[in-house]
Amino acid sequence: MVDESGGPGGPSSRLLIEYDGTEFSGWARQPGRRTVEAELERALCVLLRRDAVALTVAGRTDSGVHATRQVVHFDTDAPRPESAWVRGVNASLPPTVAVRWAVDIADDFHARFAATGRHYTYLLLDHPVRPALLQSRIGWYHRPLALQPMQEAAQALLGAHDFSAFRAAECQARSPVKTLDRLEIAREGDMLRFELHADAFLHHMVRNIVGTLVSVGGGRQPPAWVASVLASRDRAQAAPTFAAAGLYLTGVDYAPRWNLPATRAPVRVFGS
Amino acid sequence: MVDESGGPGGPSSRLLIEYDGTEFSGWARQPGRRTVEAELERALCVLLRRDAVALTVAGRTDSGVHATRQVVHFDTDAPRPESAWVRGVNASLPPTVAVRWAVDIADDFHARFAATGRHYTYLLLDHPVRPALLQSRIGWYHRPLALQPMQEAAQALLGAHDFSAFRAAECQARSPVKTLDRLEIAREGDMLRFELHADAFLHHMVRNIVGTLVSVGGGRQPPAWVASVLASRDRAQAAPTFAAAGLYLTGVDYAPRWNLPATRAPVRVFGS
Repeated sequence: MVDESGGPGGPSSRLLIEYDGTEFSGWARQPGRRTVEAELERALCVLLRRDAVALTVAGRTDSGVHATRQVVHFDTDAPRPESAWVRGVNASLPPTVAVRWAVDIADDFHARFAATGRHYTYLLLDHPVRPALLQSRIGWYHRPLALQPMQEAAQALLGAHDFSAFRAAECQARSPVKTLDRLEIAREGDMLRFELHADAFLHHMVRNIVGTLVSVGGGRQPPAWVASVLASRDRAQAAPTFAAAGLYLTGVDYAPRWNLPATRAPVRVFGS
Repeated sequence: MVDESGGPGGPSSRLLIEYDGTEFSGWARQPGRRTVEAELERALCVLLRRDAVALTVAGRTDSGVHATRQVVHFDTDAPRPESAWVRGVNASLPPTVAVRWAVDIADDFHARFAATGRHYTYLLLDHPVRPALLQSRIGWYHRPLALQPMQEAAQALLGAHDFSAFRAAECQARSPVKTLDRLEIAREGDMLRFELHADAFLHHMVRNIVGTLVSVGGGRQPPAWVASVLASRDRAQAAPTFAAAGLYLTGVDYAPRWNLPATRAPVRVFGS
């Protein structure tokens, strides 16, 4: 039995999407801007022959930020096989956005409130010559960065902290306290890879952390400075927000009971 | 002494460039089209305060084809330090094209005629869902491809052959005989990587070879068919030209006596 209202007890669908954020003003719908949410809603409306579809997402991204995996849910009274959702919606999406899977599950699932963690990767080229082939796909710093001081400084950020010093003024999170349980930095050739995991992130938190660690890696600040920035809870103490280009939302965690297909995919590096 | 004519005996410069070919109609200047050659010439004219600079290149690329390394030369009577060439030209280039190095060398060097080999990589996703994050960076086939039959078929193409069956009608090469000494195909996750090396390639040769191997990998043709296509020397026998998106010029070989900086770099691609 299908509850035509799409309300409690009705079926509801979840989509997992992937996108190149270069040409989008982030996830969230904004008047006059091209956003991923607006494009996905438009494509769903074509398939559903409706005028509007309300989307809920875990991990809203900013302008220019990419996603290998991002989970979206919406309520629908139109049951369709997974292939119809995937192929039907992809046919109407721009080429830089794609649905990877779609499932129907019980409607007490909520893409945002059921999420227990978020994964982000930041890729950064430290080289005198700016990237070209990877322009808009990678952050860039024009001088070499020292890995070890950044790794040392990163230790101070692990755990549950008030991350107000790394929070954008426009952040709408109810609490500035988040638990960062992964902040790994590794070198891959002339590139640095930052891997982060937390229960949730504040607005601009990853990019503010990366910018602050770059101040340490570039020698402008000692590693111990990062702990004092964190303790200050003062945004003015941290470094400027680093470029969006290198940031990827790579996954969202949900409890196994939801039985979702893979909701995480690392950013892969091919070649040297 | 500088020969003001820029003729024999005058200094001459070489640049190594990298680009994302997505938004370009290939290397070669064409009226009314945005090409890499036109952008690079424009940037050099800004730096040199000249109206025109004649560029010579090894490995002309088609529309949508990328390059991690491509060597360009031009004659100039304006000696400048390498940093001026690199930073000065990059400041005037679009963000998806960059000069990686610049050197002055004796003017009997010729970017095209001195080249002894070319390296290409083709990246191909075989998956039911089209790529999004890697859209324009990777070829796509909607069904799984079998690696082993493609590897078997590829053997027939190795060595010196008349590659007319894989040659575009508009190809301007003097001879259709080329020596293909590398054609390796490997799987990396849900992606196939083709690595090719030859003394030189005919127009569309890599993309026609990839398309023909996809016919084998997809089961439409047996591996032995590829040898018969090659022997036919008839373009109509081979498969259609595969998409430009997955093709990368990854290097050009020159004799060690030219003492050039690195002219080869494997492709690195970020995706999910």
